[in-house]
Amino acid sequence: MGGIHVLENAVVGFIGTGVMGKSMAGHLLSAGYPVHVYTRTKAKAQDLLERGARWAETPGEIAEKANIIITIVGFPSDVEEIYLGQDGLVANGKENTYLIDMTTSTPSLAQKIHAEAKKKGMHALDAPVSGGDIGARDARLAIMVGGDEEDFKRIEPLLQLLGTNIILQGPAGAGQHTKMCNQIAIASNMMGVIESVVYAEKAGLDPENVLKTIATGAAGSWSLSNLAPRVIQGNFEPGFMIKHFIKDMNIALEEAAKMNLDLPGLALAQSLYRKLEEDGLGDKGTQALYKYFMKSL
Amino acid sequence: MGGIHVLENAVVGFIGTGVMGKSMAGHLLSAGYPVHVYTRTKAKAQDLLERGARWAETPGEIAEKANIIITIVGFPSDVEEIYLGQDGLVANGKENTYLIDMTTSTPSLAQKIHAEAKKKGMHALDAPVSGGDIGARDARLAIMVGGDEEDFKRIEPLLQLLGTNIILQGPAGAGQHTKMCNQIAIASNMMGVIESVVYAEKAGLDPENVLKTIATGAAGSWSLSNLAPRVIQGNFEPGFMIKHFIKDMNIALEEAAKMNLDLPGLALAQSLYRKLEEDGLGDKGTQALYKYFMKSL
Repeated sequence: MGGIHVLENAVVGFIGTGVMGKSMAGHLLSAGYPVHVYTRTKAKAQDLLERGARWAETPGEIAEKANIIITIVGFPSDVEEIYLGQDGLVANGKENTYLIDMTTSTPSLAQKIHAEAKKKGMHALDAPVSGGDIGARDARLAIMVGGDEEDFKRIEPLLQLLGTNIILQGPAGAGQHTKMCNQIAIASNMMGVIESVVYAEKAGLDPENVLKTIATGAAGSWSLSNLAPRVIQGNFEPGFMIKHFIKDMNIALEEAAKMNLDLPGLALAQSLYRKLEEDGLGDKGTQALYKYFMKSL
Repeated sequence: MGGIHVLENAVVGFIGTGVMGKSMAGHLLSAGYPVHVYTRTKAKAQDLLERGARWAETPGEIAEKANIIITIVGFPSDVEEIYLGQDGLVANGKENTYLIDMTTSTPSLAQKIHAEAKKKGMHALDAPVSGGDIGARDARLAIMVGGDEEDFKRIEPLLQLLGTNIILQGPAGAGQHTKMCNQIAIASNMMGVIESVVYAEKAGLDPENVLKTIATGAAGSWSLSNLAPRVIQGNFEPGFMIKHFIKDMNIALEEAAKMNLDLPGLALAQSLYRKLEEDGLGDKGTQALYKYFMKSL
């Protein structure tokens, strides 16, 4: 626990208390840290405030009060404003503050924030997560970190309050790149899972019996075991929303394009999901890809 | 064990003693059944003959001697010849013979064989498998059966010598349709797995560390855990050959077309694999999809 010294005097700032952020900030409160929170809609922080968290009116106010700041917000544009805006964390923060962005955002923005923070003697890390609402609630998130090794070691004890699979993947941006690898693997697999269910139904099979056979072998995947049953039950409520998945796929495609890398599976998956969003299904879960096939039948 | 009566007097015929068939026929010998074997290249049956299996010169000779016949050969054209050819099983078999095709073949051919067999008082089932060489060796195959329920119950005790996950999926052809569901789920997932590895490498990440994070979460799959590590090690030897995978994808696409079903993910995966086959990589393992991206870089 090499990070114990910095953490002894840690004052935590937490920006973004959505479903995941709320659980995560709660774990830090439970561990005894003073926590200052800011989020766009104050009502979403109410539970935390009742548990002793203190409210800040702006990201800049968080920056003035905290020396370890965690952010988990919506889109890269939100991250950019919170970190690099006039009233943001870098402009208003103190030397030696640790800045940890756990939003799924762009690798290039993570690198820019790292560089800008460094100019002011601050330490920025990108640390997106996987594991969803349940992983956040149970403090079992996978955390993919990019940044300087020394900084990672300092804040690792804090991350251990939030997750169980915490790996420094490389320099600034590497956490975001790793998250992109995760989303790329999911994107094409979702097509395979949904096409498999649609084929089963069209062929007159009982898709539940089909899953009993195929989910345990070489076709097996998390999505086949967890999302295909929801499709069969007609449940399209979001574990992970289509609109957020499209955001992630867009980032991955843009980053791939910068690397002159053509990812045809990802591009196809993104195009199918965009059609669903155009049809007003952006707030549904990713398993609603099924509806693309129902429409085209 | 409702099938014990027919199995007491069972004389087994086995056609196709390739890597999987050899293990499977061996289990039947070990269980004490008399086994007659036929395969295109007699040398591939030598081990079984030394263990007491008896050689037949043609499928027709198998049909004359056996009352339960299992086939696991290469392509639908082989299946058609063995079952419906002049010297085949249906023309030369006895009433009440059970015919079990474990080849991955077309649902429509399975239906045709079932109908032709029925005219002669024979019982045909389609029963393709998943689990590969190792599943065959360890008698842990998943077996997806199509056919009449009564017939299934009769031969189930024999299938239990070969596999552990044995489900009657519906009438004739349903076993093959279920296998198509399996291959459809695998096809797009292979694109996701390989694109993820390629992206990781291009982004300068250590793909082994990336797998440590992503293989256990929502991106997790059999292929990501079992085939991505082989790619990273530069191992493209076949667990499952590209040329056989293309055969299966072609069947699935043809069947889907008959159902007016468009499967864009499967179609894309098939087109990428066909390019690899054109480049002479048909005998490589499915993880050699990686080479498509290396070529296009």
